[in-house]
Amino acid sequence: MSVTAAAGFQAAGVSAGLRSSGEPDVALVVNRGPHFAVATVFTSNRSKANPILWSEQVVADGVAKAIVLNAGGANCFTGAEGFETTRLTAGAVAAGLGMATEDVLVCSTGLIGEVLDRHKVLSGVDAALAALSGNALSGNASSINPLSINPLSINGGMQAARAILTTDTVEKLSVREHGGWTIGGMAKGAGMLAPALATMLVVMTTDAELKSAELDAALHEAARVTFNRLDSDGCTSTNDQVTILASGASGIQPALDDFTAVLKEVCADLAQQLMADAEGASHEITIVVHGAKSEADAEEVGRSIARSNLFKAAVFGNDPNWGRVLAAIGTTNADFDPYKVDVSMNGIRVCHHGEPDVPRDQVDLSDRFLVVELDLAAGIASATILTNDLTHAYVHENSAYSS
Amino acid sequence: MSVTAAAGFQAAGVSAGLRSSGEPDVALVVNRGPHFAVATVFTSNRSKANPILWSEQVVADGVAKAIVLNAGGANCFTGAEGFETTRLTAGAVAAGLGMATEDVLVCSTGLIGEVLDRHKVLSGVDAALAALSGNALSGNASSINPLSINPLSINGGMQAARAILTTDTVEKLSVREHGGWTIGGMAKGAGMLAPALATMLVVMTTDAELKSAELDAALHEAARVTFNRLDSDGCTSTNDQVTILASGASGIQPALDDFTAVLKEVCADLAQQLMADAEGASHEITIVVHGAKSEADAEEVGRSIARSNLFKAAVFGNDPNWGRVLAAIGTTNADFDPYKVDVSMNGIRVCHHGEPDVPRDQVDLSDRFLVVELDLAAGIASATILTNDLTHAYVHENSAYSS
Repeated sequence: MSVTAAAGFQAAGVSAGLRSSGEPDVALVVNRGPHFAVATVFTSNRSKANPILWSEQVVADGVAKAIVLNAGGANCFTGAEGFETTRLTAGAVAAGLGMATEDVLVCSTGLIGEVLDRHKVLSGVDAALAALSGNALSGNASSINPLSINPLSINGGMQAARAILTTDTVEKLSVREHGGWTIGGMAKGAGMLAPALATMLVVMTTDAELKSAELDAALHEAARVTFNRLDSDGCTSTNDQVTILASGASGIQPALDDFTAVLKEVCADLAQQLMADAEGASHEITIVVHGAKSEADAEEVGRSIARSNLFKAAVFGNDPNWGRVLAAIGTTNADFDPYKVDVSMNGIRVCHHGEPDVPRDQVDLSDRFLVVELDLAAGIASATILTNDLTHAYVHENSAYSS
Repeated sequence: MSVTAAAGFQAAGVSAGLRSSGEPDVALVVNRGPHFAVATVFTSNRSKANPILWSEQVVADGVAKAIVLNAGGANCFTGAEGFETTRLTAGAVAAGLGMATEDVLVCSTGLIGEVLDRHKVLSGVDAALAALSGNALSGNASSINPLSINPLSINGGMQAARAILTTDTVEKLSVREHGGWTIGGMAKGAGMLAPALATMLVVMTTDAELKSAELDAALHEAARVTFNRLDSDGCTSTNDQVTILASGASGIQPALDDFTAVLKEVCADLAQQLMADAEGASHEITIVVHGAKSEADAEEVGRSIARSNLFKAAVFGNDPNWGRVLAAIGTTNADFDPYKVDVSMNGIRVCHHGEPDVPRDQVDLSDRFLVVELDLAAGIASATILTNDLTHAYVHENSAYSS
């Protein structure tokens, strides 16, 4: 499952004591080849964590052989010492696996502005190397046979998926097989899920054989309509990173369109799981905007609703308050007439051409899933945005998270 | 006090049964001249309520003689019938006072997308006409002497200020005197306080003598740095309207700079009161951004913090989480280097050049007032944004408000 479903990958997840709860907090995923293509999408936030600054350099040549991830500390705004901790983490992985430091990606998640305990992270790397799937009993990183892919790798993938969680309540996993090759992935993220990514760490692997430029094109197209349209609380993290590693171990070179389509499925599946586990959410809200003049307009309109605290608090109270939908979309620059808009909730059209239609008390919001549909009557483009409601649990979790 | 502090104005506030609580819900302010200059700032929301659509027409000639306001219904997205209710409301005021319908402004606040009860509003207008300060005992609108300004007008101003409240807990009033003339005002607004206004209704009056173009210039300059920098929850209302009426009854023509400065004081005072009464807030947060390359940059940076649910939930939890400040400002396009930024909270510099400085546990957030100061180290411009924290009470109020 997860990142070890595709041939050519090993993984591990261990506890290094970075999370005060003692839960697993260091994950390692290794590409055993024969190819080592990589593609990434990084946070759009200009305030970038040290692992982002490092990983941007690693992927510059389109090659990466391993990725190490830690929970329990974002290593962001921690200065030169913090950057050095990231570099040493990559170096420890590289030394254990016999590869160049510059081929090891690093991801971190947790509190910003706190020093990440270097000793604990490096100890965690040692433990993860020893626990790499297929070598769980060896206890000796140097004994790893680079070509041995063991059935135990299934456990490695699960352990890695668990070790990247923070306030998440469940692992997020997805696997698709197609024409002899496989894409598998894991994700974490439960808040700060917003534009152009989130406190979202995603690692996907494939045994399809692709050039890094092809992998990059496929990933950006897939992320654009999945992860980038998940907007939980409008906050963009400093540490977001979506990575895909391609081993080529299947020996199959898929058509790029086929590969992109399957990758999009995996990304959409993971995005849906991220929404389902968003901090404190009691409703999962799918906002579908039709009839826009352009896809960008549809996205802007959908996102304005996903960012309306007033609308999202109303949904928490099971109140189909379509007036707050119209108030939200009126703040956008999209090309439409607010007085020609239709709004439906769970299939009930509560607003027609900017006037009340079916009485809103006929909408039942007691279910966890809400679909809000808008027809802007301005064109034929559409977009879907995923979000959740604003709840007491969200406020609680984010006022108590760091303490 | 309030709108009747300046010479030449009468006011009233009555209960018309629009609010289910039975509290006052129709307010009327009348300019008795000799001049009738008006200036307004309307919501920037493209989804505009019927009273906004009406009032935009009224002020086109720079003249208005009265303003009638109702709580208990926004009259927004209620179609042609809703617009006709607004027009009839203005007409009833005009008939009672012997003026043209096109000289009567209308404001509404309440739930969007619900029909406003026309009968109740018009009954409220009759009652308000009868109760106009100086005529409280007459019970007969036609008996009003257009030139009689009675000491009882003090009560009329207070009653009007009370009749525009919705979820507000207290009346907002401000008065300044300067060189023989006076500016007084009242405001309501407790949520949806965001960019370019809020569910904010403000009526100010002055007995200074100004041309409507001067009044307009003064109001826009004053609102730009006061009401427009109050950002409670990032949501912009469909019904915002800030109005100033000038009677010229003092006979004094102030220098425009003097008038603008005093008007700015009144607006700042009312804005501060709006922040203090924001829905469910437990902290009043003043964000001061220094060292920006431009004032627009400073404003954008300050607003990004005011809109970070994560930061605002942290403040609710008395957590001086400066990492969330840096994460927020990293999403802006302002011209600065995140790794050169200083952040202070209540005078304690917790971040210096993008690294931890004084340990954040030395910041005490137990007080209601929090000042967040940023130095962007990019220039000499600055701006101040007012906001509040994100609390359980906010979620409760906005999930239960409409039911």
